[in-house]
Amino acid sequence: MLTQSQVKHIAALKLKKFREEHGQFIAEGHKLVMDMVSSEFLITGIYASGEWIAENHSMVSAKKIPVFETTAREMERISALSTPSQVMAVVNIPVPDHTVSGMHDFSNSLSLALDDIRDPGNLGTIIRIADWFGIETVLCSQNCVDVYNPKVVQATMGSIARVKVLSCNLVEVLGGTPSGSPTPSGSPTPSGSPTPSGCRDEVPVYGTFLEGDSLYDQTLSNQGVIVIGNEARGISPELAPFITNKIFIPSFGSSVNGKAESLNASVATAIICAEFRRVKPNPNA
Amino acid sequence: MLTQSQVKHIAALKLKKFREEHGQFIAEGHKLVMDMVSSEFLITGIYASGEWIAENHSMVSAKKIPVFETTAREMERISALSTPSQVMAVVNIPVPDHTVSGMHDFSNSLSLALDDIRDPGNLGTIIRIADWFGIETVLCSQNCVDVYNPKVVQATMGSIARVKVLSCNLVEVLGGTPSGSPTPSGSPTPSGSPTPSGCRDEVPVYGTFLEGDSLYDQTLSNQGVIVIGNEARGISPELAPFITNKIFIPSFGSSVNGKAESLNASVATAIICAEFRRVKPNPNA
Repeated sequence: MLTQSQVKHIAALKLKKFREEHGQFIAEGHKLVMDMVSSEFLITGIYASGEWIAENHSMVSAKKIPVFETTAREMERISALSTPSQVMAVVNIPVPDHTVSGMHDFSNSLSLALDDIRDPGNLGTIIRIADWFGIETVLCSQNCVDVYNPKVVQATMGSIARVKVLSCNLVEVLGGTPSGSPTPSGSPTPSGSPTPSGCRDEVPVYGTFLEGDSLYDQTLSNQGVIVIGNEARGISPELAPFITNKIFIPSFGSSVNGKAESLNASVATAIICAEFRRVKPNPNA
Repeated sequence: MLTQSQVKHIAALKLKKFREEHGQFIAEGHKLVMDMVSSEFLITGIYASGEWIAENHSMVSAKKIPVFETTAREMERISALSTPSQVMAVVNIPVPDHTVSGMHDFSNSLSLALDDIRDPGNLGTIIRIADWFGIETVLCSQNCVDVYNPKVVQATMGSIARVKVLSCNLVEVLGGTPSGSPTPSGSPTPSGSPTPSGCRDEVPVYGTFLEGDSLYDQTLSNQGVIVIGNEARGISPELAPFITNKIFIPSFGSSVNGKAESLNASVATAIICAEFRRVKPNPNA
């Protein structure tokens, strides 16, 4: 049995306002909870049926995570799922490190940068795709849907436990002053406005545009950034100047009766990531 | 203003039971309605704001489609969207033709066969992918989510107007007796049980399996069938015997901290279709 205060606290984490206030989010279901337990995330409590606890207690107690037996009725109140599962974890939102403020190093791996992805299912699916293709970092613009939204967390199918997701100002991060070149002492501070000409780490920045070149005619690198645009508007005008390689996923539809005008954002991400890895396998895999 | 009876009739089409009873479904939003208007689907009525009607009347009246001016409050009652749009069409469900009962011809194009896809967003997204890649026919097993479910229709982003989606028994269609070889008159009817050894049209039948060969090591054809399995269980044991080419989408994740166990069904479909078309472009495009 939970206290009223526990139920109220956890149920409130469905809303972004309270997630930010408490610095916590929820993850539901056996696989997702287990993936979180195996990760570096700090779990403040596991809320589960007696049956789940009986089956998993040794593993959870080894990790010294507080476990609370929860009735089905309580689970309905705290769950964000229409059909609650047997187990939920309350997890601390990690404190952002220095990589969010223009210091991210793009030069030794492939990263994704998401420009205002608004649909929770898309964001979660993209994190799952990143995990599958060994892309360790996903940068989210500040207008992306909150990564700790329960629908996003569930759609990652556990990949949120492994992929580093950072919220940042993409204009600053893609165009900011080079982190590796310190300002000579005594010289004036460089102007704050970024130079719009590709990523400051001098790696390729790929982005999808209707007028881009075929994905299959591009030189694909396993160092660089792939920018994914908003579901409705594509890549924003503020980010477009930083794209060095405009790419287009060829469609092969018949043109007699028209054809699909676009692909879903997560579907496009998948096709692009698969092609990058087909051509240049992940050196760290 | 609509009559109470109209409101009740249209609102009921959100439920499968009433879609089947009336043989109708709804499509919402300007682009989707326009795609339906340009298609071979029969639209029985367009329900729209006065503003929409003023802007689009000439086009709609040229097609002789009845148009009903609808208040915002009425639209809220008939719409399946949380934020109703300005326009909705009520469309007749096409009467299935002979292709559903084992007579589909796989031999001159690439088709998709969906084995119990249950998520409406996945089914809609797969139809949109088929449209993008020039795959004209999507066969759905009888346990797939209803293609005329409003969430499916909306997720197709209009592609439902162009892609032929047929509900059928996939075991019969993939394994049934050859449609081109009529039974000699007077001879006994062949046994009803299909021979489980690939598609009866003798084209390759591709399907994803964890123990399959890499997608990139396969001989990909632009004639054949790609079977997509259920979100949780994959391809069902009844269909597995008909798969001639077991394929696997390579993951490139680091194995240090584990990695994603699988890809979303629509994401996997997209990667596979893109690779088929990259290797063997659509001859009809």
